[in-house]
Amino acid sequence: MGIPGNSELTAEPETTIRGAFTLLMANLNISDDRPVIPMSVSEPSAFPCFSTSHIASDAIAEAVQSTDFNGYPAAEGILPARRAVAEYLSQDLPNKLSPDDVFMTMGCQQAALTILHVLGGSKLNILLPKPCFPYYDVFAQTFGLEIRFFDLLSEKHWEVDLDSVIAVADENTVGMVIINPGNPCGNVFTYSHLKKVHMCRRSYSLLISFLIIRSIKQYFHISPYPPSFIQGALPHILAKTDKDFFSSVLNIIKDAANSCYEGLKDIPGVTCPTRPEGSMCLLVKLDISMFEDIKDDLDFCIKLAKEESVMILPGISVGLPNWLRVTFAIDPSYLEDGIKRLKSFCERHSKRA
Amino acid sequence: MGIPGNSELTAEPETTIRGAFTLLMANLNISDDRPVIPMSVSEPSAFPCFSTSHIASDAIAEAVQSTDFNGYPAAEGILPARRAVAEYLSQDLPNKLSPDDVFMTMGCQQAALTILHVLGGSKLNILLPKPCFPYYDVFAQTFGLEIRFFDLLSEKHWEVDLDSVIAVADENTVGMVIINPGNPCGNVFTYSHLKKVHMCRRSYSLLISFLIIRSIKQYFHISPYPPSFIQGALPHILAKTDKDFFSSVLNIIKDAANSCYEGLKDIPGVTCPTRPEGSMCLLVKLDISMFEDIKDDLDFCIKLAKEESVMILPGISVGLPNWLRVTFAIDPSYLEDGIKRLKSFCERHSKRA
Repeated sequence: MGIPGNSELTAEPETTIRGAFTLLMANLNISDDRPVIPMSVSEPSAFPCFSTSHIASDAIAEAVQSTDFNGYPAAEGILPARRAVAEYLSQDLPNKLSPDDVFMTMGCQQAALTILHVLGGSKLNILLPKPCFPYYDVFAQTFGLEIRFFDLLSEKHWEVDLDSVIAVADENTVGMVIINPGNPCGNVFTYSHLKKVHMCRRSYSLLISFLIIRSIKQYFHISPYPPSFIQGALPHILAKTDKDFFSSVLNIIKDAANSCYEGLKDIPGVTCPTRPEGSMCLLVKLDISMFEDIKDDLDFCIKLAKEESVMILPGISVGLPNWLRVTFAIDPSYLEDGIKRLKSFCERHSKRA
Repeated sequence: MGIPGNSELTAEPETTIRGAFTLLMANLNISDDRPVIPMSVSEPSAFPCFSTSHIASDAIAEAVQSTDFNGYPAAEGILPARRAVAEYLSQDLPNKLSPDDVFMTMGCQQAALTILHVLGGSKLNILLPKPCFPYYDVFAQTFGLEIRFFDLLSEKHWEVDLDSVIAVADENTVGMVIINPGNPCGNVFTYSHLKKVHMCRRSYSLLISFLIIRSIKQYFHISPYPPSFIQGALPHILAKTDKDFFSSVLNIIKDAANSCYEGLKDIPGVTCPTRPEGSMCLLVKLDISMFEDIKDDLDFCIKLAKEESVMILPGISVGLPNWLRVTFAIDPSYLEDGIKRLKSFCERHSKRA
């Protein structure tokens, strides 16, 4: 009898974001007195300048204490929450969403997992971008979908390589993952580019939307769902959170994106091809040949964590060896310090002329 | 090109608990002025007598407002929560659990899903009890595990049919699902019976525990996790919730179990083989031949919802046609009313002598 276990779950840990994060944590030098600069995971809410609005936390506190949301929610989510989301997202749309178009999930990850599960098991294939977060890959395989990759082009603002889509798509292509604003790339696709992607997809396949709705509903009958009191708080959060809250946060991120992009220009051995436009992170190309004693991106990130207490994600975690994924959505003073330490690290490890 | 969709997700809706629930809801008679008696889903917390302790809701409110738990938790759960669970569960154990033995999930369902995912994809088989909740079945199939059923014996207090285990287990059997206290059956296995089950399993297979821990950790790197502030509240909830809270709730459920079991004795066409010992529901056998115009359990439940505004789950939802799953964990006055309406329904539909 073999050792049980889905083979994709026995992959090396650095090929998942959280796996790489754990590996970097283990390599930090605890006798370094400086603060750790966390540029590896996009989770700004730990910093006061990015803190969640108290409107949100108060609404959740009120919902849980009201006891109004005790008990199981409807499988697809409670109606007031789905209605509030439909109205919120319809604000700028010519065709309005209805609550029936909305399903509540535990974040984007479960949403992606749901679609992949529903599409799976039919000898069909799905197109994934490269680079991309690894869980699309893992779950698509688990659910029996064949995976085919198309390229995002670093030299063209991470646009979709239309030729690579045409090369891999066929009559069994059931869907295509497009992440916009780009994550991990940090770009935003133009409308005209998305139109081209749509045209080139249409000639090979048609994403079936109505036919899978029943399967999605069935899926929610057997899957975990977001706590009902969090769903209960959602209408209040969407209605009451001030627009200033979002614009203030966006301004901080915009400034951080620019100062990170500019700061990287002065660092030997790294190149950032695209100024980030709609994300909390950017991708940086490593020129390994410039360094004295760095083997690859993982080696770079482990040594950086050890020597400078700066955590940056190796590109291998998003399928792009010898790149780095740098999160800039951190406190501005931390970001400045992080860029300085990264510079000092790269200079120290550069080959002598 | 075929219609996409995992085949198990296109099953009839009454074969899942939530699917059957939705079907019954749609069949309620809105012009019936009497309150709906919800004996179909075990979710007592909507009734004031079963309300969650304010210790729990206050702890969650405090955790979310503290901002201490903003940001992503560790993949397997935050350490204080895992430590609190390990200590709580170790109270009566000779060998103590460590925090590393604990993984935080969104309820039992995600825990089951995790194990099935981790064991999947290796041409192995898993033994499931019949009756059983349908999602074990669905997820095991999705993850490429072969399913084999063993029987629970209604005439023997729902004990495991050891012969049926021996008949289906072989060298590729990787695990066996045992739910204790029994759900949906409502029984509690005796220690000596569990020992026999263990012996008969051991002769065919060995559940591998240590070898799958790494795979579980990997799985949590790519799966949804419980909100960090709920995890943050857990140590306080476990430490501060009074024992009286649990004993008071358990006493209400015990009384409800007894009055439901006794009440069913007077109703024609139904038999409850076992007094419930450790659950919020029991299973009732229908004698379809006793009824004038009832086709099967689903027909029974739909007509009962229509005519009496009483919701009871058809046995088919747990793989047991012509049985009923009756939840008694509701407000005692509702329970009394529900049993009365059920009796009146059965008498009205009985064949005339």
